[in-house]
Order: sequence, then C-alpha cells, then structure tokens
Amino acid sequence: MRPLYIVWAWLLLCIPSSVFSQCMVRGTADLGLIVERATGSVKIVDTTNYKPLYRVQGLGDLSHASAVFSRDARYAYVFGRDGGLSKVDLLCGGIVKRVVQAGNSIGGAISQDGKLVAVSNYTPGGVKIFEAESLQLVADLPARSADGHSSKVVGLVDAPGQRFVYSLYEAGEIRIADMRDPQRPQIKQFSDIGNQPYDGLITPDGRHYISGLFGEDGLVLIDLWYPDRGPQRILDHYGKGKKALPVYKMPHLEGWAMAGDSLFLPAVGHHAILVVDRRTWKQVAQISVHGQPVFAVARPDGRQVWVNFALPNNDTVQVIDVQTLQVAHTLRPGKGVLHMEFAPRGEALWLSVRDVDQVQIYDTHTMKQIGSIEAVKPSGIFFTARAHKIGL
Amino acid sequence: MRPLYIVWAWLLLCIPSSVFSQCMVRGTADLGLIVERATGSVKIVDTTNYKPLYRVQGLGDLSHASAVFSRDARYAYVFGRDGGLSKVDLLCGGIVKRVVQAGNSIGGAISQDGKLVAVSNYTPGGVKIFEAESLQLVADLPARSADGHSSKVVGLVDAPGQRFVYSLYEAGEIRIADMRDPQRPQIKQFSDIGNQPYDGLITPDGRHYISGLFGEDGLVLIDLWYPDRGPQRILDHYGKGKKALPVYKMPHLEGWAMAGDSLFLPAVGHHAILVVDRRTWKQVAQISVHGQPVFAVARPDGRQVWVNFALPNNDTVQVIDVQTLQVAHTLRPGKGVLHMEFAPRGEALWLSVRDVDQVQIYDTHTMKQIGSIEAVKPSGIFFTARAHKIGL
Repeated sequence: MRPLYIVWAWLLLCIPSSVFSQCMVRGTADLGLIVERATGSVKIVDTTNYKPLYRVQGLGDLSHASAVFSRDARYAYVFGRDGGLSKVDLLCGGIVKRVVQAGNSIGGAISQDGKLVAVSNYTPGGVKIFEAESLQLVADLPARSADGHSSKVVGLVDAPGQRFVYSLYEAGEIRIADMRDPQRPQIKQFSDIGNQPYDGLITPDGRHYISGLFGEDGLVLIDLWYPDRGPQRILDHYGKGKKALPVYKMPHLEGWAMAGDSLFLPAVGHHAILVVDRRTWKQVAQISVHGQPVFAVARPDGRQVWVNFALPNNDTVQVIDVQTLQVAHTLRPGKGVLHMEFAPRGEALWLSVRDVDQVQIYDTHTMKQIGSIEAVKPSGIFFTARAHKIGL
Repeated sequence: MRPLYIVWAWLLLCIPSSVFSQCMVRGTADLGLIVERATGSVKIVDTTNYKPLYRVQGLGDLSHASAVFSRDARYAYVFGRDGGLSKVDLLCGGIVKRVVQAGNSIGGAISQDGKLVAVSNYTPGGVKIFEAESLQLVADLPARSADGHSSKVVGLVDAPGQRFVYSLYEAGEIRIADMRDPQRPQIKQFSDIGNQPYDGLITPDGRHYISGLFGEDGLVLIDLWYPDRGPQRILDHYGKGKKALPVYKMPHLEGWAMAGDSLFLPAVGHHAILVVDRRTWKQVAQISVHGQPVFAVARPDGRQVWVNFALPNNDTVQVIDVQTLQVAHTLRPGKGVLHMEFAPRGEALWLSVRDVDQVQIYDTHTMKQIGSIEAVKPSGIFFTARAHKIGL
C-alpha cells in the first residue's frame, strides 16, 4: 500500500506543476496581441521570434476593438464593440475575467498607476471605470450635458496625474476626470468646444489633448498643464480651397504621428497628410498621398511616418521621410491593411492585412518583409511596450 | 515493484516542475534591478508593489555598475567595473552566464534588435560585442588611434540602425559601429573632436550623440541622421566668467534630461543646471542649484527635472519646474543619494540612499515618500521599461 500512497502524494504534488505547465515562464515585454475581428478572438504573439503563442476565443464583437496592458504586461484589457471588457492573461492564454459593461463601447484607457481601467461608451454613453485587478466597477461617469441628454463618449485617453480625458460627441464637450481619489472623481467640463468631436489624441508627453471635429473643419486643443486656460481652436478650415471627398473611413486620431516638433495628421476627406508645427499648432506643410489616410504612425526615432488608407486604396502603405516630407516608399501588402504597430525601438513594423488573413512584418530600414503570422481577419495590433506609454 | 517504478517516473516528471517552481510565472514589464555596489549583488524588485523579489550575488565589483535589459525584459545584463558582464535571470533570480571580458570596464549597451550586447572597456580599451543569448564574443573593436595607442572607451550607447556610438578618451575621437552584419562591423571614425571626451549621451529619439569634454569647456555633437556632416562644437565656454570649483564627481551625461525642446544638463564644476534649446543647441538659461549636480533626470511627461548632487551635498535632491525654470522642491532623503529612476509613466520616482541602505520611493505629485526597500549600499536603479528605450 505504501508505494501507492506515495504515488498519490506525488500526483498531488505534481498538480500545480501541470497547471503551471500551461502557462509560460517568460518575459512579457516582447509580447503582442492581434485582434481577429470576425471571430471574436485574439492571437498572442512573440515579437522577438515572430511566432504565435496562443489564440484566445470568446471575446465577443471585436470590430473596432482595441487593447491596453497592465503595467507588468502580463494582462491585456480588450475593449470590444459590444461593451465587453475582457482581461486576458498573456502568459497562460486565457480570459481571466470578462464583463459586458455597456451596450456599445468604443475603446478605453488604463490609468497612470495601472490600477484603473476606463471604458468609453456609445450606448448608453458615459465612462465606466473599473479596478484593473478585479474588474469591479469603481466609478460610473455619465455623459449628460446641461439639457439632460446623454452623449456618446469618444477619444478617451489617460493623462498624467491619474486623469482620464474624453470628448462628448453630441454635446460638444471635453471632460477631464481626476481619479486620484477613485471614490470621488473630480470632473472638469469644457462646453461649446465645437461641433461633434469624433475622436481625440494626447501628445506622447501627456500635455496636449486634441479633439477632431466631424461637424467643422478644425480641431480643438487643451493644454493639460493649464486646463484653466480652456480649449483653443487650431487648424481652422484646413481643407479650405480643396473640395472634400466623401469620407470612406474616419481617420483615427490616436494614430496621429508626433515626429520631432511635427505632428503628422490625416486630412479627413482629402488625399493628404497635414504637417503641423507643435510649437505654434499651425500647418506648415501638406503631403499628397495615395488615398484617404486612416492611420499615420511615426517610427519611434521620428524619421519615418507610415500611412495606410481607406477603401479603395486599402491595399497600399506609404512611408514618408520626415526630413524631406516626401513619400519615400510605397508598399502593397495586400487588400485590407487595417493597422500598423512598430517594434518599440523601431527596427520593425507589423501590419495587419485583413483580406489575406495575415500579419506581415517589415524591416523599416530595408523595407523588405522579414516575417509573417497567420491570423483570421486581423485588425488591431498592440504590443506590450504600450504599458509604459502615456496615452496609449 | 511496479508502483515503485511509477513513483520514480513521477519523480522524474516532477523535476522540471520543482526547478520551475523557483521561477515566477509573472509579467516582467514592472521589474527593477538595484545595484548593491559594496557586496557585488543586485536586488530584483517589483515596482508595482514596492517589494523585493530576489537578491542575486556573485557579480564582482559593482562600483559604477550599470545594466541593460533583453527585449522581453526577462534578463538583465549587468556591467561591472572589473570587466565582468553578467546575464541575470529576473524571473528565476540567478546568474545565467558571466564572462570577465576585460580588466576594467565602464558600462554597455544593447542593440536595437536586442541581439547584441556591447561593453566599453578602460583596460585594455576598446569595445567588445557579445551575442545577447549566449554571451559568445561576436566582435572585438579595438580603440587604437593613428599613433597606435589604445584609448579608454566612454559614452557607449546604442543607436537606431543597429549601431553603437562611443568616444575615445585619450584619442579624442567619436566612433560609430554599424553592426548590421555582426561579422563585418562598419566603423566610422571622427578624429580631433576635442580634448578628453569623458562621457556621452544620445537624445531619446536616437538622433543626436553628444560627448562631454573634460579637457575643454564645451561639448561635441554628431547628427546621426547625417554623420557625414561631421562633429559640431556646442556650448563652448559655458562656464565663462564664473570660477569653476574643484570637481568632486563627474556628472553623468546619460542622466541629462530632455524635457520638451530643452536639454537640462549639469554644469561641471558649478552649482548650476544649464538649459539648452534643442533646436539651436544654445544655452538659454542657467538654474542655480544646491550643489554640484550629478544626475538631472526628466519626469517622463517633461514637467519636472530631478537633480542629485556630489559631496558634500549628496544628502539632497532638488526638483526643477520645467515651466518656470525654478527649483520647486528640495528633499533630504539622507546621505549618499546616488541615483534616481522614474516609473515609466512618471507617477513615482525611486532613489537610492547609499548611507542609509535604502531605496526610497516618492510620489512625484505630492512629493511624499510612499515606500521604501532595504538594500545594502544601493547605487544604480534600473527598470525594465528601459528595454524599449533608445540609448538606455
């Protein structure tokens, strides 16, 4: 009997190891997450060896999904279109927790200290804030304006000082929520900022928040170091004198590129990238490109800006040389280039090509493809280095 | 016999688990490494919970030691003063490999793709480059000048394009090693750059390399986007009209702070921080501080610069407000404040206080101490977020 007893003892001792053996003992700073929009799944990938590690399923409607990362980069928080907020374990390849927190949502952010996750909602509107650890609701910030109507919330970003900043589409407001005391959020409201803010971005240093206006030809800027100075209109009538085309896909402001002192931004409804001087917030150049730009992203060293396009030009990517302000390279990765993500130090760029079910990896020096990963209808690509970035 | 046989089978199966159980399944993006200079050890810490995780011993002479991280942030490469290069496993708390590669060395760097680790040597001089994975020697770059003499190598940094940049102290040279083909390093040499370059820094975008000159009152700049334009002298005679004090401790150039468009740099031999406009490379202000500055580091949002000092003022830290260019706060953490490191998104600052055997953690908004970790004679503090930074 005794040996059998020992066998059982060993069996029991081994159980934790067999559970653990499904998780990985490995660094997490080089992991990435690829959204498979059609199948409600994400692929977790190794960005050093260009290898898939896990596919995680059951994340709901992932059209227009995005993700942020815990500060240890073990977990991703995935924001689905259906109001689902899912906490995914990158080391063990599973969903730790999932809450459906609204009817329709559009992205989120993680606080400076990594303890709070905020989600911006279309239906019923407003921002919900959760504890990152447990996904327990911490605060529910309505988006009701003076007339009592609720607005869709867009352009939600984190800012230094444990703040979240966001825009109210119908109300035409920008709000800053200071979450230093999570039980007593301090909200600052800026009304009459302009017509239909549709997305927002924050500069990489977390100082300037900018909303794009769908109902007007211009943008709104708030200096978060001096919020009391209020919102400021910039780039008014930037499309003046040119006939705007029908807009096939709204550009993403989060993708606007800061390179050196310049901001590169897609001109809505034009085949152009606008170059804005960050010190004056005035347009200093306009670069003609292949189609209506969607994302413009700067290589981390600020020497190149990569641009993808809306239909019917979404098979193409162009690379702008920041010094000459010329298109230096044109690539044709395939139909449905939806998103691009740089390796943190810029040596490689990953892009998703939806219609060929592939993520392609390019050397940003030679412009040659150096790898690929199969994925089902891939859209967003997010690397864990974002955990350390303000506003991403 | 059979049950016993099974027992042994299970024992064998369990071995990997028992080895693994000493390692952690956890994210690595929030880890840090604290150098214990007197005991040749490092402490691995959890920067989210302010907790020590491991002490790793046997790293040799760690006076003036520094570290870089693998791109997955699982491993630290620790550069000792005795020429030792140690690869430390942060998840398992041990030394994976250690080579003593020179008689006396002074820091190192990791290549853009994370595959090469370079060490700069005083004795016998030159740069040795190792495979990050195995620590096998890949290239040995001598630092011999035209007259045949070997120089101490200082100011070694990584730069985009798989390059390393460094300065030759005796020869007065800057060199750029392109390691794209590790078997055939391409070296560019710049001679007659000035007298005794003693340290170097690279701007956070990896574009500008700057050497400080010990033998002259000025600095040398190379634009790495256009290296053929050659070196350029900047800030000549920055101490003019003021009598320099004896220098108690050389400032570290790596610690120079870039905040917005300004560079904050310690004035050698003066109780002052110089503010330099990055677009013109001219001095625009000078800020009086409490002693001879050693490190000046910018909070990641660029709103504060923290400064520590040489003896006899090394018990003090001052915080400069970047907008007003005034000292806004003075802290007295204790004697022997040697190094400072910001949380990647800036909410906290860690500093080592050698003479009280402590690392203290401050909230950078309230300026209050919010945590501490015991460490034996702590000096350098390095967080894994550096894995994703150019030049760190």
